[in-house]
Amino acid sequence: MTSPVSDSDTTEQDRRERQLVDAVIASFADTPNERLRTVLTAMVEHLHALIREVRLTGQEWEQAIAFLTHAGHITDDKRQEFILLSDVLGASMQTIIVNDDPTGRSTEATVVGPFFVENSTRVQLGADISGGASGEPCWVEGVVSDIDGRPLGGARIEVWEADDDGYYDVQYRDERSAARGHLYTDDDGRYRFWALTPTRYPIPSDGPVGGLLAATNRSPMRAPHLHFMVSHEAMRTVTTHVFVAGEDLGSDSVFGIRDSLIVDFSRSSGEEPTPDGRVIQGTSWTRARFDIVLAPQPVPRSTRSPA
Amino acid sequence: MTSPVSDSDTTEQDRRERQLVDAVIASFADTPNERLRTVLTAMVEHLHALIREVRLTGQEWEQAIAFLTHAGHITDDKRQEFILLSDVLGASMQTIIVNDDPTGRSTEATVVGPFFVENSTRVQLGADISGGASGEPCWVEGVVSDIDGRPLGGARIEVWEADDDGYYDVQYRDERSAARGHLYTDDDGRYRFWALTPTRYPIPSDGPVGGLLAATNRSPMRAPHLHFMVSHEAMRTVTTHVFVAGEDLGSDSVFGIRDSLIVDFSRSSGEEPTPDGRVIQGTSWTRARFDIVLAPQPVPRSTRSPA
Repeated sequence: MTSPVSDSDTTEQDRRERQLVDAVIASFADTPNERLRTVLTAMVEHLHALIREVRLTGQEWEQAIAFLTHAGHITDDKRQEFILLSDVLGASMQTIIVNDDPTGRSTEATVVGPFFVENSTRVQLGADISGGASGEPCWVEGVVSDIDGRPLGGARIEVWEADDDGYYDVQYRDERSAARGHLYTDDDGRYRFWALTPTRYPIPSDGPVGGLLAATNRSPMRAPHLHFMVSHEAMRTVTTHVFVAGEDLGSDSVFGIRDSLIVDFSRSSGEEPTPDGRVIQGTSWTRARFDIVLAPQPVPRSTRSPA
Repeated sequence: MTSPVSDSDTTEQDRRERQLVDAVIASFADTPNERLRTVLTAMVEHLHALIREVRLTGQEWEQAIAFLTHAGHITDDKRQEFILLSDVLGASMQTIIVNDDPTGRSTEATVVGPFFVENSTRVQLGADISGGASGEPCWVEGVVSDIDGRPLGGARIEVWEADDDGYYDVQYRDERSAARGHLYTDDDGRYRFWALTPTRYPIPSDGPVGGLLAATNRSPMRAPHLHFMVSHEAMRTVTTHVFVAGEDLGSDSVFGIRDSLIVDFSRSSGEEPTPDGRVIQGTSWTRARFDIVLAPQPVPRSTRSPA
């Protein structure tokens, strides 16, 4: 048997490639922050293993550089293509899963997505956060408690969602604030507000991430959901969604679905009385209940006692 | 013995993490381009393995997003922070090594770096490419041949380098073109030109890559070098450097050094006659010989006969 590459050539090639990996790792040896060195070392190992395994070509490397450059240039204070990239690769969701509350008794987290904004409008309990955004009215209520079932008064609830055209307020770029707000639970931990029934919508697909999805025959559609970020002093903040039951949840372009977050949004005609007596005419409305359980703050690693 | 995490919890956690990896890989199943699917699958495996191994925190994920965003925003048509990032992580060099000419008989390649520009000025054999850039004059000459030693006439040689302040022309942002040009070998494959003796210089360190080097106590300095990109019809283009012998080559911030590319730059006083009779006064000058061997074009994978 003959082969165009002898064993000794292969070994020599392998030696050269491994030598480079070792040199790069060694270059980080004097990093003062041990955690940073650990993360960089693991990243270098995986990055080089990837290049070596797929035998990345120079042209593919150029495509990767061009992709990142395009993502950087389309990103601004209201559009975050790198988060979108992390989302569609499941990296955002994996980061959430590895940080899951170890008690397993609190509300599960999911992706934050690229459309959260600081300093949303505060609304009162029972108010309508839609702010003129189009869509079917939806009453959302629930209780925020700790893992032992004690209600948490004064918990801050941030909510945000797309309108029924599939756009978040910030995507309109006209400074509107709509389908977004924050409120606080009452002394019994209860909250309630009007919003919009969540609908399916595509993630922004006019950038490089959209190009990646198109090139891989992947759908850009997200399963219908309403974003929550719930915080309370001394509690672990949870960033999550409530998903609409009965929709096709089999494919969510950012892998955000968790069974525990799927809730029934029951639909009523406009003639039926609403929970707060609001008069709704000419359209149906829905209601959903989503109770939220917050875990205690995790104990910092350095103060944990050995097992 | 008791443990805060039981084996079954660990297994359940592991199952959830692996399930996500499998879901992401499955999402690429309908990718028409098989090579793209292969590369994306391997990338997803390594990206998720990294997140799981280091137990990436949400804050670290945010830092990574911010780092990439900063890199994207500092990148323009004359500054390429993503190439710089790839360079300092050794990813650029690893991509070159995995694509090394399998004959092992041609001039070794090294990183292209972020400062190559298309459409450089053409100069005649023996001309000075420095274009007014500051530095010690340096005569460079050599022969371009194929791996059987046959000289290659009409080979195109692109050369570019930093001035002795450590800057490439494009870093001045005043549209100058200096210490850069291209020329063609004569019928005997010979070339010659005046340039500047290469000096040590730092890679751009005012951006996020510079921040990474600072945080890891790494030097931004590159070993002194002159860039070459040599092409000829039917030959494999080589992008490489010639490095100056006698300098400290132990640490190059982009891992570009290969022993075969280190060349003696012998120094003469201004009184000694130059190779082409040019009169140089008041300064020393150097000369270097760098012969370049081009490999044949690689046979496309699809037409290779099985081993």
